[in-house]
Formats: sequence, C-alpha cells, structure tokens
Amino acid sequence: MDWEKRLRCEALKEKLMTAEEAALLLEDGMTVAVSGFTPSGCPKAVPLALAEQVRSGKRKLRLNLLSGASTGEELDSAWASLGIIARRLPYMTSGALRAAVNGKAGEPVAFTDIHLGQLAQNTRLGFYGPVHVAIIEAAAVTEEGNLIPTTAVGCSQAFIDAAERVIVELNLKQSAELEGFHDIVRLPDPPCRGPVPLTQVGQRIGTPWLRCPAEKIAAVVLSEAPEKPRPLAPEDEVSRRIAANILAFLQKEKAAGRPSADRLPLQSGVGSVANAVLLGLKDGEFSHLRFYSEVMQDGILDLIDAGKADLASATSLSLSEDGMRRLLENLERYRSKIVLRDSEISNSAELIRRLGVIAMNTAVEADIYGNVNSSQMGGTNIYNGIGGSGDYARSSAISIFMTGSVAKNGAVSCIVPMVPHVDHTEHDVDVLVTEQGYADLRGLSPKERARQIIENCAHPAYRPQLRAYFERACAATGGAQTPQLLEECFSFHTRLRETGSMLITDEKEREKPC
Amino acid sequence: MDWEKRLRCEALKEKLMTAEEAALLLEDGMTVAVSGFTPSGCPKAVPLALAEQVRSGKRKLRLNLLSGASTGEELDSAWASLGIIARRLPYMTSGALRAAVNGKAGEPVAFTDIHLGQLAQNTRLGFYGPVHVAIIEAAAVTEEGNLIPTTAVGCSQAFIDAAERVIVELNLKQSAELEGFHDIVRLPDPPCRGPVPLTQVGQRIGTPWLRCPAEKIAAVVLSEAPEKPRPLAPEDEVSRRIAANILAFLQKEKAAGRPSADRLPLQSGVGSVANAVLLGLKDGEFSHLRFYSEVMQDGILDLIDAGKADLASATSLSLSEDGMRRLLENLERYRSKIVLRDSEISNSAELIRRLGVIAMNTAVEADIYGNVNSSQMGGTNIYNGIGGSGDYARSSAISIFMTGSVAKNGAVSCIVPMVPHVDHTEHDVDVLVTEQGYADLRGLSPKERARQIIENCAHPAYRPQLRAYFERACAATGGAQTPQLLEECFSFHTRLRETGSMLITDEKEREKPC
Repeated sequence: MDWEKRLRCEALKEKLMTAEEAALLLEDGMTVAVSGFTPSGCPKAVPLALAEQVRSGKRKLRLNLLSGASTGEELDSAWASLGIIARRLPYMTSGALRAAVNGKAGEPVAFTDIHLGQLAQNTRLGFYGPVHVAIIEAAAVTEEGNLIPTTAVGCSQAFIDAAERVIVELNLKQSAELEGFHDIVRLPDPPCRGPVPLTQVGQRIGTPWLRCPAEKIAAVVLSEAPEKPRPLAPEDEVSRRIAANILAFLQKEKAAGRPSADRLPLQSGVGSVANAVLLGLKDGEFSHLRFYSEVMQDGILDLIDAGKADLASATSLSLSEDGMRRLLENLERYRSKIVLRDSEISNSAELIRRLGVIAMNTAVEADIYGNVNSSQMGGTNIYNGIGGSGDYARSSAISIFMTGSVAKNGAVSCIVPMVPHVDHTEHDVDVLVTEQGYADLRGLSPKERARQIIENCAHPAYRPQLRAYFERACAATGGAQTPQLLEECFSFHTRLRETGSMLITDEKEREKPC
Repeated sequence: MDWEKRLRCEALKEKLMTAEEAALLLEDGMTVAVSGFTPSGCPKAVPLALAEQVRSGKRKLRLNLLSGASTGEELDSAWASLGIIARRLPYMTSGALRAAVNGKAGEPVAFTDIHLGQLAQNTRLGFYGPVHVAIIEAAAVTEEGNLIPTTAVGCSQAFIDAAERVIVELNLKQSAELEGFHDIVRLPDPPCRGPVPLTQVGQRIGTPWLRCPAEKIAAVVLSEAPEKPRPLAPEDEVSRRIAANILAFLQKEKAAGRPSADRLPLQSGVGSVANAVLLGLKDGEFSHLRFYSEVMQDGILDLIDAGKADLASATSLSLSEDGMRRLLENLERYRSKIVLRDSEISNSAELIRRLGVIAMNTAVEADIYGNVNSSQMGGTNIYNGIGGSGDYARSSAISIFMTGSVAKNGAVSCIVPMVPHVDHTEHDVDVLVTEQGYADLRGLSPKERARQIIENCAHPAYRPQLRAYFERACAATGGAQTPQLLEECFSFHTRLRETGSMLITDEKEREKPC
C-alpha cells in the first residue's frame, strides 16, 4: 500500500485515526497552528472534518488559527463561514474570512496582520499564547518519525516546536517525490544564537525533514484531499508595461555600474504583474538569474527551462496544475535548482540583507511622497494583509513597488495625495513603478519625489489634479518638508465614495480646495 | 609636541595644511561626507574655516552633505545658515538646518530621511552619487596611516571607502585615550559576503582603527576645536512615570517566563525619557544588563558603576562634560565594557535580530491603531528625522515606543485617531507606553489595539473624544478591520491649528462628526 511506504515509522502506526477522530482533538478556545504557505501545503482533511462536525450541528467551537501565510479554501473559507475562527494571523486570501474580518458577514474575527518573517520567533517566544495543536501536512514520515513536508514549508517547524500536540496529515495525493526539495532549519531564539550560515541562494544548511518528537504526535491521519492548484494569473497589457518599466530600471542600474539583476537575487511575488516580470526577464538581457522569494510560480520554471535562471529559493510552490506536472515530470532538472525553506529563512532580514535581494512588491496604492498602502481598501477594509512585503522591502538592497496607475477602469487613481493606510513608509520605497514609467526615489527629498511620481507614474488623466494638490500644499505649508493639506489629502478617496470616481472632470474644480 | 605623538605616520606629515587651505578643496556641487554621529566625532575646524570663507564673501558654493547622523553646530548650523547645504541626509538636530529644510528660513535644502543602518551600503553602492571628499576627525594617525576615531564611529569607514579624497582633522582636544574603544568593520557589499560574525554585545570583530589608503589623504589638519558636550536632558515627572511603566512591562514579561531585560540586550535612545529609563533600571530588579544601541549616555556609565550593566555597544559617546571626564578618569573600568562600532553594525538588521534587542524608541505621536509618527510635526514639518528608530523597531525582539500622553500643557494629545505621517507602521509597534500606562499590542487586531491604547495610554482628558471617534468610525465602517473616518481622522490636528488645542471642552461636541 502506498501509505505504508510513506508512513515509514512503525511506532506512529498506532496513532492512525480518521480525520473525524482527529478533529475531536480540537476544542473550543484552543490555538491551532497549521502547515503551509498560501493554499500550498496546508492540512485539508482534518479541517474539513471539523467543519462538517460544526456544519451538522454536532459541535460548536471557536479557535485561534495561525498559519504560515494564507491557507486553502478547506481551512480559512470553510472555517470562517461557519464561525469557527475567533482570532487569525498572519495573512489571508479567503473571501469568506475577509468578509468576517471586516465585519461584513459571519462571526467577527480578530485579525492581526504581521510581517511573515517574524511569525515563527514570536510564536516560539509565546507572544500569541500557547499553541495547543499543530496540524502538519506531510508527504511521508521517515523511519525516525521525521516529517517530509509537501508543497510548502511555512512555519511548520516552529509550530511543531511551539505546539503541545501535533496532528500529522499524511496526504497521499501529494507527490512522494517532493522529498529532498526542502531545507529545514531550526533556529534558536535570542539571545544565544549565531549567524544563519546561509551565504548563497541555493545553499542547503538544514535537513530535508521536519523534526517532531514522537510523543508530541497525537494523531496520524491519512488524507487523499487534492491540493487545488493556483490558476495562472491572466496576462494583460498593463502588467506587461509595468514589467517593461521594471526591466528598464534594472538595465539602467547595470549600465550605471551598480549591482542589478546580473549580480543580485530577485524577490518576486505572485499575480499578473509578477508573472509579466518573469516573462519579461525571459526575453531580457539578464542571465544566471537567482530568485530568493516566498513563492515560486510557473514563470520561474520557464526561466529555468530557458536557461535564464540558475536557482530559486522559496517557502512555497505556488504552481498551476500544469506547472506542478512539469515539476514532477522533470524532477532531476529541478531538484538541484529549487530549495524550499522555512518562511523564517526565506523572509529573514539577516539573509535578505546579506544576499542583497532586489525586492519587487505590489502596492494597492502609493502616495506622491512614496508611502505605500498594500493592505487596506479605502484605509479601512483589509484585503489580504502585508504578507512578506515588509520583510523584503525593508532589508533589500533595492526596494521596488509596483502598481497600475489606475484601477476600476480609471475611476481609481493608484497615485494619491496621501495613502489612508501605510504599510511601507517613504523610507522603504526606493523605486515606484507603474505602466506609465518609473520613479527612482533614492536620495530624493519628499518634494522631489512628488514631482517624479506625478510625472512618471501617475496616469495622465490624474496628473493635473495631483499637480494642483501638490502646488496648493506647497504654498499653504510654505514649502515644508512634506507638504500636505490635512483637510484635503483624502479628497480623492471621499470623491470616489461620493461620485464613483476620483477623477475631477471640470478643470476649474481642480484648482479649488475641497 | 602632542601632535607629533598623534601623527605617527611620517609620510602623512607632508600633507599637513591649515583648515583654511583644506577648506579650499571643497568645491561647488561636491558631495562631502563627514565622520561622527550626533555632534560627537564630527569634524569642526575645516567646516568652520569654510563657513568663514563663505561668510566673508570670499567664496560661494553649495554642497551635498552626508554624515552618520546629526552633526555639531560647526557643521549643520553654520553651513545651513550660510546657504552652503544643497542636499542633506540622513538626519539632523540643528535648528537652522531644520528651518531651511522646512522652507522657513535661508536657502532651501533637499533633505532625505533614511534608516541610518542603510546609509553606509547605499553610499558605497553609489545610490547617492559619488562622494568627492570625506572629512574624518581622528584622535591619532598610526604609523601605518590608519585613523583612530574620536567620540563616534558613524559611517566613517564607508565614507572613506566611497570617497575620492579624504581630509583628516587631527583633533588634539579629543583624548588620545580613546584609542582602543573602537571596533571597526569593513563590510563587503552584496552579493558576495558572509555573516557578520558578531554574536555577543561586547564582542570585538574588527580593528581599533579606520583604514585609509595614504594616497586618498589630501590633507591633514591639526585642530583644537573642542567638542561641545551634550547637556543632560532634564528629568521630569512624566519621564519618570513612562520609565516606570516600561519597567512594569519588562517585569511582566519576565514573570510570564518570556525573555526580558534579564536575557535580552536593550536599545535606549537619548533624551529625558531614555535617561529616566536608565535611572529606573538602576533601582530595578534587573542586573547584568547589556545595551546594544546607537548612542551612549551618562546613565549607562551610572549603570556600569552601580554594577547593574555589564556591557554597552554604541556608535557614539553622547556624554555630558561630566560623563566624558568620568570616562577618561576611569578608563580601565570602562574599556572592557564599552565598544564603539560602525553605525552599519550598531544598526544592523542582522545583528539586532540575532541578539534579540528590546528596542525603546520615542514617538512624536501615535494613533489608536498603533501607527507611530516620529519625525513630522503636523504631518508636514520634519523635526529631526527617523534616525535609527526603524532599524531597531523592525528587527528587535520586542519593539517599544514611548511618548507623553499629551504635549504643550495638554493642548496636544499624543494619541490621535490617525497620525498624519507614518514612520513606523502598526506592524512594527509591539508595546506603546505613556505616563498613563502601557498597551501590549502583540497579537491584537486593530480594534482591540484601539481600546487598549485609548484606555491605557491616552490622557484621561482626551479619552472621551477618542472613544467617541472610535465608536463613530466602527459604526460608519460596519466594524471594518481599521475603522477610520477619512473626513474626520485629522480633526484633532485641524482643531489644534484653529483653536490652539486638540481638546473638545463641550461634551456635546464630542459626539458630532466634524
């Protein structure tokens, strides 16, 4: 039987139970921490079994849920729509959970949005209280009882170490061939610790398995729950133009003799713009590319196949169905080029700084002074959260943020006078890129940045009203360091709410204060 | 002669010239980088000579000025008031410079406010263009031509490495006994570099001198310019109560079995609150204290003398006249306990994270969701800048921010609905402390944070109007993640401007939207 080959530790066979039985180990008020990062690598069977127990009225409970990043539908969506989640961190992509967090549907959820790179240590140090149960998806259990992760590492090792009990979900639908892709490091906590001994993107410094004391394991559940692959983000013209502008910036850096993608590793996120950047790199001048990122998309496989990328380090395989098939059919090509790490390592300030990563993150909106909102719509409703963007932006050698200049068919300008929520301050944004162009903000004063951002990044339709605001603010504050008009700085946002668009169509209106 | 004992490199004697002659090496449009961090360790003679050349009408020029942090009056104030500074980074404390930066007096200055820990690498990588001249204050020059720094290290080594030419100011008024306090590290730039091999606060990993190729040295100037000591910040009751609340938090952590000041090094800034915290520690329960900070104040000498502190690492000796005398009269007691480092090391994300520093930084104001403004008055006029606060806050094990609950005799609430400038986001603030109490924000959602901050940190006089705002915002946004009213969130600030106070005295007014 396949499962016997995978559950190679004899002693753990007596811990075998059904998902329904294991779900009964979760009790009201507990804190539960799960494997995975994005939907990849999350437990599925036990969460779904618990959801069914609640849905059918057999049980009623509320839990605190920790995960590496977001989770799959089986967890966040299923649990949030049943009111199971009382408290949640650090990140989400589920619509049902988002509605609950923002008070729009279901039971309220207390959501904390933290830097993903800091989650493991904070959990170990007890900042979020005790972790009662960790649920870890595994592709296999070794003879010694060590766990082979599946498509992501996330915070699994830290969660195991912090947890009182562990439920192992041995997922037979995940490829057993994933064994060997992971490099797991158990970081000690301060103050007694040395450097993380990683100096190269592809270096292995740990073990291919998660260590878990057998006595902590309360259950082993066999699962055949398939992982839903992430659909490829559609390409579009705006993304292609943003990508072209990022490449133009990288080429300018190289031409100026400064380190660029030829010498520094890249961090690249997910979504259509990140995809377009990867596609652009495939046709671009840079070769021997290295990626030091959170997630690995199909585009990185393409770059490896094209001989353009040498190495990719991530904490999660965020591949499409086709991408995962490609990986598994060409294991030998990819095994030496891909490393999956703990998010504490992929998002480590120490390593991002040491390696000199060029960070590329997505903004919801940016203001004319370079502050970035990457989490809250209208300043109040959280969308996904900051994820690892701050880990990379802050410690990178060069921090790039990108966004379309407009959204909602032009009704929303993504360049505004002041962002109503700041996730990345002006001090953490080196380059801002839209499909209109890029603004290289390094070494500029706020007023110089404003001129660059308005003229290079804002959509032409919005430039007149942004210029008018900036000039009025300069005049009213007597040329202060950061000219802002506190009565008017959110006029773009309030106009959107009142008229359905941020755009001022009447030329005379632009010159008037609100 | 004293100077001959200090200028021990024969070959450099032929580079001796007067400050006036050396000042002629500075030409219009140049970028000049100087030693020092705070007024400590900055060059004085050459800057004053240049100022005199400009003041007397002999010369007219504008320069870009880089320094480790702020500088002395001889530099920022003298130059800014004569219009010599065109561009300035990364930090300031000079009133004349501040006025110029904010457009209030003198020639405009383009000021860039960056994380001090990132300045060295950015400069070496050429992000701010070429450095034409570095001016380095030295206490001595060794036989080999290496430079012994004076009261601060700052970015001196990086500036020497980046500069085309170097002017050495050999300051005979600085004690020659400072030799041996410094530990200078020349960090390579990414991508080819290993870990910074520092694992203990007091460890020495470099050399006691700055390395400078003899051929770069364009001038050696003998100086007898005294360094103006920093006056001790006055103690006051509010500072003492803030300090007591910080100590209460640290004791709670220890009692809960979590790492606290007994196990983790402390970062402590300057000013009356930082002083009061040091004083509180002297009488408190913690011993074997270690400091990993930017600046070293008198209070740390007191803690060493009292047997409470074992080690202090800093980049600057920011001592009073009495403190400096005490240091020099008891060199043997202090030499093994104090290390002065490059600011790239003192403010290193890698090291702050590894050591698990407890960061204590000062806020200008904080909002009810935990975002902190530490640089801009009214959101528009910069005061000093962020300095190293972000380096420590982001990478620390625990990030504490502190402020009085009110300023200007109660006319200003330092807890507001929304800060009009964000330097540290909600993601970087673990604990907020005022003289009223502390709010432990770890793991809380924004709405939970708001209740804690209003009830524990805000001044009682402002609590009713903060509660009223928060409740209105919750109602209007339907309990969104971060309830804010964009039309009203700056009403505290606009009320201050219009009425001279943020306070609503009429009870009924509180309930009304603006």
